[in-house]
Amino acid sequence: MKIAIIGTGRVGGTLGKAWASAGHDLVFGSRDPQGQKTQELMKSIGEKACADTIPGAAAWGEVMVLAVPWNAVEESLRAAGSLADKLLIDCTNPIGSEMQPALPNTTSGGEQVAQWAPEAKVVKAFNIIGFDVMANPDFAGQKASLFYCGDDPLAKAKAARLITEVGFESIDSGPLTVARYLEPMTLLWVSLVRGQGMGRNIAFKLLRR
Amino acid sequence: MKIAIIGTGRVGGTLGKAWASAGHDLVFGSRDPQGQKTQELMKSIGEKACADTIPGAAAWGEVMVLAVPWNAVEESLRAAGSLADKLLIDCTNPIGSEMQPALPNTTSGGEQVAQWAPEAKVVKAFNIIGFDVMANPDFAGQKASLFYCGDDPLAKAKAARLITEVGFESIDSGPLTVARYLEPMTLLWVSLVRGQGMGRNIAFKLLRR
Repeated sequence: MKIAIIGTGRVGGTLGKAWASAGHDLVFGSRDPQGQKTQELMKSIGEKACADTIPGAAAWGEVMVLAVPWNAVEESLRAAGSLADKLLIDCTNPIGSEMQPALPNTTSGGEQVAQWAPEAKVVKAFNIIGFDVMANPDFAGQKASLFYCGDDPLAKAKAARLITEVGFESIDSGPLTVARYLEPMTLLWVSLVRGQGMGRNIAFKLLRR
Repeated sequence: MKIAIIGTGRVGGTLGKAWASAGHDLVFGSRDPQGQKTQELMKSIGEKACADTIPGAAAWGEVMVLAVPWNAVEESLRAAGSLADKLLIDCTNPIGSEMQPALPNTTSGGEQVAQWAPEAKVVKAFNIIGFDVMANPDFAGQKASLFYCGDDPLAKAKAARLITEVGFESIDSGPLTVARYLEPMTLLWVSLVRGQGMGRNIAFKLLRR
């Protein structure tokens, strides 16, 4: 797949490395595609990745992955331009200052993203856990679960494949409104990592019988 | 411990059975302690359990477990009377009609319970998963995780012991405000159970390395 990743931080970089290893082509969209940090990331991923402007990357990709801080989401989507019928994987979290939810629980970041990009097929994914877990979702032979949600079945199937390729067990958690329940889990993860001192190498697993 | 369980439904009944097996004494608080359903529950648990009024049970217990529907919580706490310095385990979920959150995400059911019972030491626990999982938290040799939170260290230690005795791995998730993140997980569980058709025998596990 041709994957445009908006954001050159640790989440975008980690996912990009995994997808490049799986054989996908990547263009990172950045406000500073020639900047040193961005170019170092490209070098670390190799020939499968290059950098472009946000609109350049978005126009090229068949999949767009949004991996920017919440306060940059609206601007990034506006810069991206039309995303008609593209899969848009929303990895963001609507978290404001002092790690508080930036939106009321009558909506979610995922739904807000879908309002800002109404032509895209939005799937919420990769929001709950940190980049360390994305770099290695294996816990002593057990794959961490990656909960995702969205309204378009074909887009979700594509997202599930990308989730699996990173090394997670993909868990279809329902329609996009379920982002209202996935996003607070990020703050639980943060509370365990920081408040409880567990460190960043923790993740969630869905147990079934 | 002397455990007062307010609520004779499947959550209260299931936890009561587990704690009776562990050797604790139980009094179930009910609006109808002599009713047939309540008496059948007492018989099924055995000599460790009896039923009383809500204030009778609450006055007797050193621990009070709140396991009633959200719309009965305030009335139950008013009926219970003073809970000065008692551990109050809040198993409830602030869910309104059509499975929507009944409270904004600037607070939580756990915090609301603490406001209604200001002298009690509130610990949020046993809210995320259903009674089937409480009856057997073992998934092919793996214990499901039980996330709990609260502000009083001694009360939390007591709660952790009771969680472990039911068969879970107890996960101290931080202060009572973390209930804001634990309560939405219930709705994720419901979405997986009902919307995704996974059935009620699913639970969450915290993976660490």
